[in-house]
Parts: sequence; C-alpha cells; structure tokens
Amino acid sequence: MSIVMHDLAGADPDVRFSPYCWRIRFALAHKGLPVETIPWRFTETEVIAFSGQGKVPVIRDRETVVYDSWSIAEYLEDQHPAPALFGGAVGKAHAQFVNAWADGVLVGGIARFIVRDLLDVIDPKDRDYFRKSREARFGASLEAIQAGREDRLAAFRDLLLPIRLVLRRQDWLGGAAPSYADHIIAGTLMWPRCASRFALLEDTDRVARWFDRVLDLYGGLGRAAKRA
Amino acid sequence: MSIVMHDLAGADPDVRFSPYCWRIRFALAHKGLPVETIPWRFTETEVIAFSGQGKVPVIRDRETVVYDSWSIAEYLEDQHPAPALFGGAVGKAHAQFVNAWADGVLVGGIARFIVRDLLDVIDPKDRDYFRKSREARFGASLEAIQAGREDRLAAFRDLLLPIRLVLRRQDWLGGAAPSYADHIIAGTLMWPRCASRFALLEDTDRVARWFDRVLDLYGGLGRAAKRA
Repeated sequence: MSIVMHDLAGADPDVRFSPYCWRIRFALAHKGLPVETIPWRFTETEVIAFSGQGKVPVIRDRETVVYDSWSIAEYLEDQHPAPALFGGAVGKAHAQFVNAWADGVLVGGIARFIVRDLLDVIDPKDRDYFRKSREARFGASLEAIQAGREDRLAAFRDLLLPIRLVLRRQDWLGGAAPSYADHIIAGTLMWPRCASRFALLEDTDRVARWFDRVLDLYGGLGRAAKRA
Repeated sequence: MSIVMHDLAGADPDVRFSPYCWRIRFALAHKGLPVETIPWRFTETEVIAFSGQGKVPVIRDRETVVYDSWSIAEYLEDQHPAPALFGGAVGKAHAQFVNAWADGVLVGGIARFIVRDLLDVIDPKDRDYFRKSREARFGASLEAIQAGREDRLAAFRDLLLPIRLVLRRQDWLGGAAPSYADHIIAGTLMWPRCASRFALLEDTDRVARWFDRVLDLYGGLGRAAKRA
C-alpha cells in the first residue's frame, strides 16, 4: 500500500506549491517510495484533523500518521534507511541548520516576492484565510508586501550566497549525491516555480544550474510539476 | 611530536583572535591532539611561505603542511577519525553549508562591529596593512564601518536566527555532542570575544548560552583564552 500524503493544492488541483510538501515529495522519490497525493486546501482543517493539527504535509503510512516535514523526513529515514537522506546522526544534525536557514531566511525572503501571486493560485475558498493570515504576519497588505520586487531582487540573490559557496566545492548540498539538504532548498524553490512566473534566479547563477539538475532527478519529478 | 600551528596574534602574543584559527584550535582539542601554537602577525608572510600561501591557520604535522581551516579539519578527520568532526561524508557535506554561512554571512556581519577595535589589538607593524586592506574591502574607513554599531545590533542578532532555531531542537549544532559545525560558529564568535569588549550577544539568547557551554569544552579552552 502506497504512502498517502495530503499535499497543498491550488484552485487547479494539479498545481502543488507548498515548500514543505515538496521537500517530502523529493524525499519520498529519493527513497523510491510510491506516494498517493491528495490535494488539500488551507481551510480543509477537518480533513487532516486525524493528524492532531492543521497543516500539511501529513502522511499516512498504513497505521502511522506523521506531520511536519522534518518529522516526516526522519520517519522515512528510520523506516527505509537506504538510500540515506541524512547519512547518520551528525549528518542529520547538520541538516537541521540547512532546514533552519531555509525556514528562517529563505521562506520569508521568497514570500515577499510571490505572496500576492499566491492569492491568484490558491482555491477561492482559501482566499479570505490566506489574505488575513499573511497580512497579519507581515503587517502589510499582500499588494504592499510584494510591491517593488524588481528593486529587491539583487538583495534576495545575495541571500543565497551560502548555497552558492557550497556549490563551488561540491555538486550537491549532500556532497557527491543529493541528500535531504538538497530537498530542503529545492523543495523551497519549487514554491515560487509552481506558484509564480516571477524569475527569482538568474539563469547563470550556480544556484539556478543546481536547481535545474534537481528538476531532472527522480525521473524529472520537479520539472514535470504543473506551474500556475 | 605535536602538531605545530601558526596562529594569528595581537601586539600581545597571548591574544589570539582569528575566527579561522579558533575553528582549528577547537577541532584539535576535540581530537585530543596536542598543539604547539606559534604567534603570527598579518605581515609575516615569509614565515609561512613554506605553505605556499600567506594566511593562517597553517599546520605542520611532521612532514605534512596544511593550510585553510576547512582543509585542515578534513586532514585531521582523515588522520584521526575518532572522535568524529563530521560523522561521515554526508555530515561533512552538510557542514560545508554551516561553513559557507559562517564565512559569507557571520564573518562579514561581525566585522562591521569590531573592525576598528581590531586595529588597537593587532601588532603595530600590522596596522598599515590592516587599515588599507580592510578599508579597500569595505569601501569605507575603519571608523566609518564600525560607526553606529549600537543601532545595528538588533539586526545582527536577527541574523543568528538559524543557529537559534537549531538550538531549540538540539543541544549542539552537531546534535547530541559537539561537531565541527559547533567549532565553525564558536570559533567565529571567539574573534569578537578575544578582540573586542563590545557585547554582540544578549546573555539570555539561546546562542549565548550555547556559546557559554562551548567555552567550557576541552578543559575550558575557550574560556581561558586571553581577551584584549
């Protein structure tokens, strides 16, 4: 029986754009595990109430329910050790830093470029919730948050310097092969790719070239993903 | 025969403040390897010409010479696998991200708070070199770079968010025990600790409490270090 995953979807159920769900899509593919994804919208909290909380990703693996992308990655590694996502306890501990940087710096950085675009992608029934919750979080209207994004692009690209420095020394964040560190960052970049047409990366950027390689992994899983 | 390490020193030869040398002091102590450090000043390039370049740390281990903190850490791990600094190939690959973040974000962030203080700490013969090279790098006088630092402190502390998020989930950046990831960040924080009296961290910050624990590691190596 396949693992079942509730996966954030837009008005078009084929458009999947959650940075956290994408981390797990890549991690599942890395393990060679089939998955049945169920499109889920922000306001469908009752649908995942069985998980004891209200956000995706949530996976059900036979009798086991796991939520939170990091916890799911840990669960997958415990249940299916090879091929490894973390490469052991220290590798997992160090991946926490990548995860923290992605959550604390990258997600907020990207949000300021696409949050208004997201409103057009999400299901109409989610729009009130989305606007209110995001405007409260940022203390500004969606339109104001995203305004002037062209002028902020260079500063955003500077934020990616740590990734760029690593990729000068190795092909993947995981070293000689992709690891969950690659899935964390690439999953986060699937969010603007699938939900917006705004080009965050320059084609010549080492980060863009690495992301392009990630899109080809696992039978082209990322590249085949429908874009809004 | 002990490993010999050329270690950046101030006018007072007992004041050692290089963020890169400190990473290696911690890594050597982690391995339980004795080290003989030789105080070195910025302008003593002939003294380390045998290494084929002009910066410290440089170590000599019997016949072998290694420079660059990352390369030295790799060398130590290869020669003395236990206790591990990296926990395997993936752990090492993931530590590259921590190293890149420290070099690309943290070092530059700290420099803007202490670069004028450093001028008072370094050897008088280094001062011309230091002022010229740093003023060229930052495009401003040492005094101007450091000016207004009180007002920039909150923004600097925000930069540390990824460390703070990791330490909410585990005691060390290495997980259950310190790893080279801890040495990278703590080594970088030894730089302002030893070269300046300016308090970058709030005592109540989770990062400050972790750094306090690092200072007690290895017989209190960090805590015993002389401050300017």
